[in-house]
Amino acid sequence: MTITEKILAAHAGLDVVKPGQIIKAKVDFALANDITAPLAIKAFKAAGGKKVFDKDRIALILDHFTPNKDIPSAIQCQEVREFAYEQNITHFYDVGQVGIEHVFLPEKGLVLPGDLVIGADSHTCTYGALGAFSTGVGSTDLGAVMLTGEIWLKVPASTRLIYKGNLPKWVMGKDLILHTIGDIGVEGALYKAMEFGGEAISQLSMDSRFTMANMAIEAGAKNGIFIPDEKTENYIRSRAQRKYYIYQNDEDANYVSVKEYNISNLEPQIALPHSPGNVRGISEIGEIKIDQVVIGSCTNGRIEDLQVAASLLRGHKIAKGVRCIVIPATQMVYLEALRQGIIEIFIKAGAAVSTPTCGPCLGGHMGVLAPGEKAISTTNRNFIGRMGHPQSEVYLSNPAVAAASAIAGKIISPEEIE
Amino acid sequence: MTITEKILAAHAGLDVVKPGQIIKAKVDFALANDITAPLAIKAFKAAGGKKVFDKDRIALILDHFTPNKDIPSAIQCQEVREFAYEQNITHFYDVGQVGIEHVFLPEKGLVLPGDLVIGADSHTCTYGALGAFSTGVGSTDLGAVMLTGEIWLKVPASTRLIYKGNLPKWVMGKDLILHTIGDIGVEGALYKAMEFGGEAISQLSMDSRFTMANMAIEAGAKNGIFIPDEKTENYIRSRAQRKYYIYQNDEDANYVSVKEYNISNLEPQIALPHSPGNVRGISEIGEIKIDQVVIGSCTNGRIEDLQVAASLLRGHKIAKGVRCIVIPATQMVYLEALRQGIIEIFIKAGAAVSTPTCGPCLGGHMGVLAPGEKAISTTNRNFIGRMGHPQSEVYLSNPAVAAASAIAGKIISPEEIE
Repeated sequence: MTITEKILAAHAGLDVVKPGQIIKAKVDFALANDITAPLAIKAFKAAGGKKVFDKDRIALILDHFTPNKDIPSAIQCQEVREFAYEQNITHFYDVGQVGIEHVFLPEKGLVLPGDLVIGADSHTCTYGALGAFSTGVGSTDLGAVMLTGEIWLKVPASTRLIYKGNLPKWVMGKDLILHTIGDIGVEGALYKAMEFGGEAISQLSMDSRFTMANMAIEAGAKNGIFIPDEKTENYIRSRAQRKYYIYQNDEDANYVSVKEYNISNLEPQIALPHSPGNVRGISEIGEIKIDQVVIGSCTNGRIEDLQVAASLLRGHKIAKGVRCIVIPATQMVYLEALRQGIIEIFIKAGAAVSTPTCGPCLGGHMGVLAPGEKAISTTNRNFIGRMGHPQSEVYLSNPAVAAASAIAGKIISPEEIE
Repeated sequence: MTITEKILAAHAGLDVVKPGQIIKAKVDFALANDITAPLAIKAFKAAGGKKVFDKDRIALILDHFTPNKDIPSAIQCQEVREFAYEQNITHFYDVGQVGIEHVFLPEKGLVLPGDLVIGADSHTCTYGALGAFSTGVGSTDLGAVMLTGEIWLKVPASTRLIYKGNLPKWVMGKDLILHTIGDIGVEGALYKAMEFGGEAISQLSMDSRFTMANMAIEAGAKNGIFIPDEKTENYIRSRAQRKYYIYQNDEDANYVSVKEYNISNLEPQIALPHSPGNVRGISEIGEIKIDQVVIGSCTNGRIEDLQVAASLLRGHKIAKGVRCIVIPATQMVYLEALRQGIIEIFIKAGAAVSTPTCGPCLGGHMGVLAPGEKAISTTNRNFIGRMGHPQSEVYLSNPAVAAASAIAGKIISPEEIE
């Protein structure tokens, strides 16, 4: 079995599972946010729900349109807050407490290797970086999970993606996943488990692995997953708040497909409007002037991302006519960036440093685009109107490209700044 | 003549002016923001305006609904930006560059003692702390000022407010002005110049003086003003970007009224919903639980305010059920707070630290209230629905009371924290 199949089998109480099989699995951890939780709570109550299955295994995190951007978002937060207090949810996190769910939960050791994690948010697949099975579901499904602690799942077939070679300078996990989605397309891994491996993955930081797993959904995958290695164990050892299980894939594991990429000559990748699959190498995109830069989100708002961006912005100023918005993904990332002097670099450069929020990634607030405006962003989606007006455009990149572009006022390679 | 009359006479090219007289005065500096500038620009163009009167004497600052909270606010910013570039406005400041207009302009030495400053924002009266005449006008009037550099004004009668005694601990400029508005009412200085003086004013920091002048409008005043002293000169000497004039009031100056306050026994003041004139001493308000705390704005987002708040929050956590939103008023304030370790204190306490914005003060974004919620805020107005839903409530206080209340989860005196 693959690692994905092993985790699912273990959670279904079965010795073996096969792709396509429908299983009923136990959930280790469930989560929702200020946008999805109100609907999940409604479904929970409609099903006659009185008590959640386990008050310690559910996270409700107010991170999308917070601090409340308007009255409707304030009311959504209020509904979640009332439910959380009523149910005595241990991991309810309000504005200012933690930050973005998908960065906070691993950082705090609340989601772990071997876990089955279900979230009412499509980027729940992020935790696959730890060697967990995690996937996003609709709010109604999450309502059922909150009630029963179980979920029906169809076991996905696994596709193996092997990255060979050495990471070039300024190339990060974001570039590997963008390159992959560009190659296989936004439906290239439809309802599959994307299993990432190879020598280049071993070189990759945990932060970059989270970025890759996070974007598995952009190729249509059910989940993205990494086989835990020493880096995973180092990351998790001091954090884990409960017991966890390290799964490996069997030598005779079945893959529906295997792809290899040699990344030694990969350049930073850009997803052009309006699809994360519309990917080019940065040298192939021509001159694209920008109005806004966003560095943050559950995809690229971790400390590595801010460090890379700051290494370029140090001593520079944001170009005239460009707004640069930096959003540390969590309060812990913010604090670490403060201590490393990184926040000071951003402020001196003339960037707006926001409190943790999903904000502009989904056009929520904190940097919504006007018609005709172009943004380069470290976020995960560049669909039409994703960051604001339907006539605006979003280009996706890693944080080094975003920072370099903020200085130049157009999309450039970080090499041009050095 | 009073200092107000002298400044107006000088700008009208007259030796003497009297209250009630209509004058045509030269404007030293004009300003507008992302909310008011689009209307001012429209008026400017409707009047056939081609070129602004002086591209170095106009500030256009995007600070209210920024970073853009939605598509309409993004379009407003876009309109201002295009006009600023077309007119080559020297002091156009975009997202991330400076912060809140009324804190930035004095901090940068762009508005000066003796100036006549006209802004399309009611809190333009802030600069009176420097011994300037400054007042807010409608956007259409500002369009005319941008075109001509002149304005028609009716000379206001002056009322003198004298503060005797010594500032008690935890009492700040905010308390003096709240106490005054509570005493005279929100129309207590209607179309008058509020001239602040007395020994307690000499003790007051410049930051606290800005707070007082800022809220003169809440008593209906045309302007608030302080006679420049050594503190003013120390503040302005290193900042001034052009020549300035120090005016004093004449010994035989005429005042329509004179009021004295002895503040030695003043306690921190709270303006209860829904008026800045509904003021009580903190010991008189009973137990009021809160949902949100806001520390920031053109009223109380300066370094002194953050220092005071941090001195209380150090080592404490925000109370369960409370969101605390801290908004340094400018990038310079943010940077200074960073260097003093103050931002770290806020983050550790669990406060959301925002990029500079007016945001929640006017219910724009970054902390909008849901129905039934109560907030304590260092801002300037607590009208019905000011910070969100019409069924929410805002209590106004100084930053010490706000910080202490964030720790307690209810409105308390800072003395209870020590």
